[in-house]
Amino acid sequence: MITIYSDAHALHDGKAELHDGKLVSSFEMPRRAELVLARVQEVGLGPVSPPKIFGLDPVRRVHAPDYVAFLETAWDEWVAEHGEYDALPFTWIGPGMRRVVPDHIDGKLGYYSFDAGTPITAGTFRAIRSAADVALTGAELIVRGERVAFALTRPPGHHAHRACYGGYCFFNNAAVAAQALRDAGADRVAVLDIDYHHGNGTQDIFYSRGDVLFASLHADPVQEYPYYLGFSDETGEGAGEGTNVNYPLPFGTGFDVWHAALRHALARIATFRADALVVSLGVDTYKGDPISRFRLDTADYPVIGAALAGAGLPTLFVMEGGYAVEAIGVNAVGVLQGFADAA
Amino acid sequence: MITIYSDAHALHDGKAELHDGKLVSSFEMPRRAELVLARVQEVGLGPVSPPKIFGLDPVRRVHAPDYVAFLETAWDEWVAEHGEYDALPFTWIGPGMRRVVPDHIDGKLGYYSFDAGTPITAGTFRAIRSAADVALTGAELIVRGERVAFALTRPPGHHAHRACYGGYCFFNNAAVAAQALRDAGADRVAVLDIDYHHGNGTQDIFYSRGDVLFASLHADPVQEYPYYLGFSDETGEGAGEGTNVNYPLPFGTGFDVWHAALRHALARIATFRADALVVSLGVDTYKGDPISRFRLDTADYPVIGAALAGAGLPTLFVMEGGYAVEAIGVNAVGVLQGFADAA
Ligand SMILES: [Zn+2]
Ligand SMILES: [Zn+2]
Repeated sequence: MITIYSDAHALHDGKAELHDGKLVSSFEMPRRAELVLARVQEVGLGPVSPPKIFGLDPVRRVHAPDYVAFLETAWDEWVAEHGEYDALPFTWIGPGMRRVVPDHIDGKLGYYSFDAGTPITAGTFRAIRSAADVALTGAELIVRGERVAFALTRPPGHHAHRACYGGYCFFNNAAVAAQALRDAGADRVAVLDIDYHHGNGTQDIFYSRGDVLFASLHADPVQEYPYYLGFSDETGEGAGEGTNVNYPLPFGTGFDVWHAALRHALARIATFRADALVVSLGVDTYKGDPISRFRLDTADYPVIGAALAGAGLPTLFVMEGGYAVEAIGVNAVGVLQGFADAA
Repeated sequence: MITIYSDAHALHDGKAELHDGKLVSSFEMPRRAELVLARVQEVGLGPVSPPKIFGLDPVRRVHAPDYVAFLETAWDEWVAEHGEYDALPFTWIGPGMRRVVPDHIDGKLGYYSFDAGTPITAGTFRAIRSAADVALTGAELIVRGERVAFALTRPPGHHAHRACYGGYCFFNNAAVAAQALRDAGADRVAVLDIDYHHGNGTQDIFYSRGDVLFASLHADPVQEYPYYLGFSDETGEGAGEGTNVNYPLPFGTGFDVWHAALRHALARIATFRADALVVSLGVDTYKGDPISRFRLDTADYPVIGAALAGAGLPTLFVMEGGYAVEAIGVNAVGVLQGFADAA
């Protein structure tokens, strides 16, 4: 299995996020990707390749052009107003307010975001552009006939909507890859999101489309971030009606219940007759994760990988969350090893 | 001129707010009201009285019952989840998300708020209930025939919408008072907001009503908080069409330009034939204000007061913003003295 990796991710290195009412060190840090890479190499998963450069056009296939343009200049606008430290939004559009784009960077930040935990730094735009290239390079491997590939993306992407960022995510790497697979000829693409959190951004992007199935296993949004999306009654709309499937699960969910939901999702993907599968691979389902409340164990991750291989589809893994840093490599690569052994 | 004051405001004493991407000490602090009170006493403005207790029914005349209920229990829910420190929202409803009320306090905070600069503390609910009582007691004085009264409210209120908080504001004291005047028999009430910031909450509450005119002089929202409301094309809707008047003014506005807008607003109030006037009295228009960018000087405030007296209406002043703490007493009471001298 080829891993695509670029150390440009380290250019995005936020100092702090507002979490539980406190400004704390960012949980989403460069060491996450470095430890996954180290584990890939330690177990000899396969070759590691750098990404090709695709530019922003494939990103704009799933993100609004004004949103992409905002991200490109946000840091410079922030520095001009405030100085050289991380940009965090601190006000947003409440009910009864207008969706207008202000001139001031503070107003733009609130307009294009949905949390105060996702800092924009000097290197953020280069990092997220590179992450999209990593995902696109992985998609190209699938198009060229690889059975499986691993896009070791960072920062993650699945929370990023068509036109707003949050949850450590700016460009939706998995959605960019799924769109690229469609544009390269796949008639139907399934995106399966196994991160602990709902993939609200991916859902948002494909919600009214029948050509991309989105399925997500995640903590119930009545209890957990992102709170305002990810409910089971969200089944898609228009041409996409029936192609959005959410599995909200309660705090404390262990592997038995989780795996039953996975089997259900894989059955749904089978009836969809997808030509390719994109897996949003988060391992914050791990029992030791500092910001999550599921109870999966390290031994469960290869079992997940084997189940995914059982779908029999060309499969692109795209890295998402996982904040138990010391375990992220073993758990994420455990899924990939389980897949490789079973495929 | 009678001043209504309760030291219960000091129960709301936030430690910090997210401002310009940093967690900084709250600009909105108990000393603000204490210094205004000290100045009232120093110049002998008139008697100082405690508020009567009105309860929450008059508050619910302008705020949604579920919002009031949320504020009543938010601190306890926060403490149960996180412990005893200030509650700040850190995620909110982005475009494409649903307006659903989650069970989790973190999701509720984002649902009912529009910034991360407005902490909820142990004493917040008692303080805001008392502030509403202060405003209502002032309104009752007007109903009973007083020419003028000063409701020394804290925390301020004009940013609070019907169902969300922000900008240091929870209950909209001025709107509660205006509604009480209506309920006591005034056919038409004008609310004039001279705080540096747009009174987005007051506008929201009365936007579709023709019986309450709302006029606001403030920094242009394309440049300044609250960014997403306060534009000149917001003129009211339905029965309220034509009874909302915004005067957005650029950074650096001095007294000449500001005063011309005030005259325009007073002319509009005259043609509305209001029975009573509520003034949202913010003095963050002052040139020394740490978070604002107008250039009014201390000598300008009595001139404003005299102009307001010229409207010839029973007038309730309700305290709003002003963060140059050392000058807040002189400036706020300067308006009141100018009014008293001219009335
Ligand atoms: Zn996650
Ligand atoms: Zn203000």
